Amino acid sequence: MNKYAIAIHGGAGTILKSSMTAEKEQLYTEGLKNAIAAGELILKNGGTSIDAVEKAVRSLEDNPLFNAGKGSVFSNSGKNEMDASIMNGQNLMAGAIAGVKNIKNPVSLAKAVMEKSEHVFLAGEGALEFAKFVGSEIENDAYFFEQMRFDQLEQAKLNDGVFLDHTPDKFENGEKKFGTVGAVALDIHGNLAAGTSTGGMTNKKFGRVGDSPIIGAGTYANNATCAISCTGHGEFFIRSVVAYDISCLMEYKGLSLKEACDLVVKNKLVNIGGEGGLIAIDSNGNIELPFNSEGMYRAKKNSDGELFVGIYGDSAITL
Amino acid sequence: MNKYAIAIHGGAGTILKSSMTAEKEQLYTEGLKNAIAAGELILKNGGTSIDAVEKAVRSLEDNPLFNAGKGSVFSNSGKNEMDASIMNGQNLMAGAIAGVKNIKNPVSLAKAVMEKSEHVFLAGEGALEFAKFVGSEIENDAYFFEQMRFDQLEQAKLNDGVFLDHTPDKFENGEKKFGTVGAVALDIHGNLAAGTSTGGMTNKKFGRVGDSPIIGAGTYANNATCAISCTGHGEFFIRSVVAYDISCLMEYKGLSLKEACDLVVKNKLVNIGGEGGLIAIDSNGNIELPFNSEGMYRAKKNSDGELFVGIYGDSAITL
Repeated sequence: MNKYAIAIHGGAGTILKSSMTAEKEQLYTEGLKNAIAAGELILKNGGTSIDAVEKAVRSLEDNPLFNAGKGSVFSNSGKNEMDASIMNGQNLMAGAIAGVKNIKNPVSLAKAVMEKSEHVFLAGEGALEFAKFVGSEIENDAYFFEQMRFDQLEQAKLNDGVFLDHTPDKFENGEKKFGTVGAVALDIHGNLAAGTSTGGMTNKKFGRVGDSPIIGAGTYANNATCAISCTGHGEFFIRSVVAYDISCLMEYKGLSLKEACDLVVKNKLVNIGGEGGLIAIDSNGNIELPFNSEGMYRAKKNSDGELFVGIYGDSAITL
Repeated sequence: MNKYAIAIHGGAGTILKSSMTAEKEQLYTEGLKNAIAAGELILKNGGTSIDAVEKAVRSLEDNPLFNAGKGSVFSNSGKNEMDASIMNGQNLMAGAIAGVKNIKNPVSLAKAVMEKSEHVFLAGEGALEFAKFVGSEIENDAYFFEQMRFDQLEQAKLNDGVFLDHTPDKFENGEKKFGTVGAVALDIHGNLAAGTSTGGMTNKKFGRVGDSPIIGAGTYANNATCAISCTGHGEFFIRSVVAYDISCLMEYKGLSLKEACDLVVKNKLVNIGGEGGLIAIDSNGNIELPFNSEGMYRAKKNSDGELFVGIYGDSAITL
């Protein structure tokens, strides 16, 4: 059988072992393992990378621990406004949505935009109309209500702050966390895919859109090079066109996946103050999980190897 | 004095001399000349490329002939929903807005996002709130009402079509026109900038967003390489990350501006069926105006040379 491989992330930022309880660590680890398993099930059975990416991201969206789908943070208006995108490396088809409310699985709506519309990118109320048109799963506000997220909004409003974080820790000690989820995969047919989904920033105003729904910035996939999903301070990732930059460094400059990832994440982004990380896979199934923040929720698995789950620095979580 | 240079576009598509009257040609030519003059006035007096780009694009937005600002086409809801973006090649700062209504000059709102917010990209109602917050010029619906545009919407609804075009010609003979405006400039300080603005597609539904507000796709500027503004079938330009692709081909593969433009517009885009064009400038003041459609409204001028205005194929308009 040909090789398959998958990697996922659940956000990057100031994630320190010292501020994590054993119980929370266990919950995050289980969440990451479940998402890998959902994607791997597709790949093992000969399914496509685009379906595997969708399933893995859906698993993270359905988990209230992560800032996407059910666990999305509250915007300033007290609503959950979500962004997502997905791209198929085989044909460079892509779909993206921004500022949508009440969609259970934004990544699946992005996939529907790719597969069932002539468009790539739909935003706001119009995207919700499209979701209804194609029969996406809609949930009421109560589904997205998480007390912890609502408390974060109240806290952020008190401080008049806009936070990218996804736990209340930062309000206590200035930590920064970037709540996004994503997946990249290679299937046995040799095709790459990438997907990203986010609930945005706590207390965000003015319809801010980050890099997650931007093809080339937060998400990119091309069989000729790599598939990428980013998480971090989105404004810097947009300005740096991060995901496509890695692809171009491979295609035009001949860098390996690792060389391109290290240059972009640990050099170029650091130089402009862009905190975060990304997951990357190439057509040989090589996986890179670089980040320049203290930690990144991440996991990977391929058809040959064992499961890796990481949260902090360089070390793996003992499974 | 150091060199300055500026180029603008007013959209690409099936623009044939056979379907143009002398009077219309004169009006378009005047519109393009006025926009160049507005930008050049800034550059000649030692102003910045970012200000010159803003002024040139504003001139095109204020001209009802072009599908941006005042001349924006009507979406399916009978509203004018506009997108724009701008980028400063000196510091890679950028601003973008999508799906905004009632903003007189979307490019100036994008510039305000860049200069007065911590964000890059604002969308929908939230972007309008930000516009009010920073005191952008707001116009009522009547300002944007152009009978010709409204007739286009009625016609498109009759045909149940979504049109990218900006004249009624296409409903008669299947022509395609991509209504977008944009400018790129080099100032005497050696800094590049790019900006793009559009009224979108006639009868567009579902909050469709094209490439115009996407940094890396419709707009990109970097002093190290080039400044780019695109016009065309936006979905293809997003999937191809067109503007940043040209920059990467120059930076990573050592191509000249002309080589990179030709490869992307006349080869890569053509191969995937992506119709349109772009305007490009490098830090030496070289300008390229490539397109793969029948025509593109375009003009350029630099501190040494004469004004060039083009509408059809390769030939200049006699001024």
